[in-house]
Amino acid sequence: MGSTGGRRVGRPRAAQRPETGLSPRDELLAAAAELFTTRGYAATTTRAVAERAGMRQASMYHYVSGKEELLAELLESTVTPSLALARDLLAQDAAPAEGRLWELCRTDVELLCGGPHNLGGLYLLPEVRADRFAGFHAVRAELKDAYRQLIAATRTGGGLAKSELDLRTDLVFGLIEGVILVHRSDSERPVAVFAEATADAALRIVGA
Amino acid sequence: MGSTGGRRVGRPRAAQRPETGLSPRDELLAAAAELFTTRGYAATTTRAVAERAGMRQASMYHYVSGKEELLAELLESTVTPSLALARDLLAQDAAPAEGRLWELCRTDVELLCGGPHNLGGLYLLPEVRADRFAGFHAVRAELKDAYRQLIAATRTGGGLAKSELDLRTDLVFGLIEGVILVHRSDSERPVAVFAEATADAALRIVGA
Repeated sequence: MGSTGGRRVGRPRAAQRPETGLSPRDELLAAAAELFTTRGYAATTTRAVAERAGMRQASMYHYVSGKEELLAELLESTVTPSLALARDLLAQDAAPAEGRLWELCRTDVELLCGGPHNLGGLYLLPEVRADRFAGFHAVRAELKDAYRQLIAATRTGGGLAKSELDLRTDLVFGLIEGVILVHRSDSERPVAVFAEATADAALRIVGA
Repeated sequence: MGSTGGRRVGRPRAAQRPETGLSPRDELLAAAAELFTTRGYAATTTRAVAERAGMRQASMYHYVSGKEELLAELLESTVTPSLALARDLLAQDAAPAEGRLWELCRTDVELLCGGPHNLGGLYLLPEVRADRFAGFHAVRAELKDAYRQLIAATRTGGGLAKSELDLRTDLVFGLIEGVILVHRSDSERPVAVFAEATADAALRIVGA
């Protein structure tokens, strides 16, 4: 992409790339996160994403295969950090499960509510049901299973029948994902306060 | 719209109207509910809604002004029955608030999860932030305020500072709306069981 002696080679760029220090791929992900959550996924064209990231549509295809790949990666990015923590916490099986479950809830809420865009809102897109998003569904199921294992390891959780354990897992997981909706309407409260209160509420649901 | 002696007058209809016994307007709402939740709001054309309801696009405009009106009415329909119940329950101020809050939670979950389509998923559409949907936001805020009043009337709720009352209200409201997400992934469990378990969980969050 060199220019010779200040003269532009080839056609000028669609727009100036913002100087964010991000890689072109991360620039595209940031642009997609903004546009998908503010304009909507179906209403956003690949061209709009490329322009927002300061590149031509044709250049974009050097980095990603299209809109679906960007959505899949954004969705997975809301789960994988929590999943890594969940695996660590599951391995610390000498520590009380109550504290580990609390920590997972707190961190998960901070992650879901703390970013600049409400990516959790993308979970409900009808498009996300497609096989193309199997990777996201797999990591989300794995995270939910980690919640289930931690709940089962609590003092009250150990005595629950499977159907009751599944029910409490759904309620805790529903609470965590549901707080996305309410947090958006009231963003004056610090995320950390809300995350700790949600973790407390999750332990009360479990009965711990 | 009469036909004379079995001969069709004018052009044939786009499709046969299904014999559901619904009014044309309700037929359009049912078609919109299905298409918005399965294909997505932005991806659904008014023409597709009209065809699904068995009428021409031009006829549709006799009954509704367009896609936005259908979405606004569908959104409000997820709130207004719960709001009517909430007003009744608030008026019964001789009865313990715990039981009234439990009943509101149970009914609200049955309503959100019990319909044929996951209309709660439409809450997160970016389009819904527009002024056009102020009516929906107003009834939803009124419902949330009813939750707040019932929580404040419980024995533990009465002693809470305003910020703590707001926090518990957000957690209970978040739980109720969040169960939409998890219920969709596991629809084998009867809605009634899930609704009662959610109401129990809400009371535990409040500390009642």
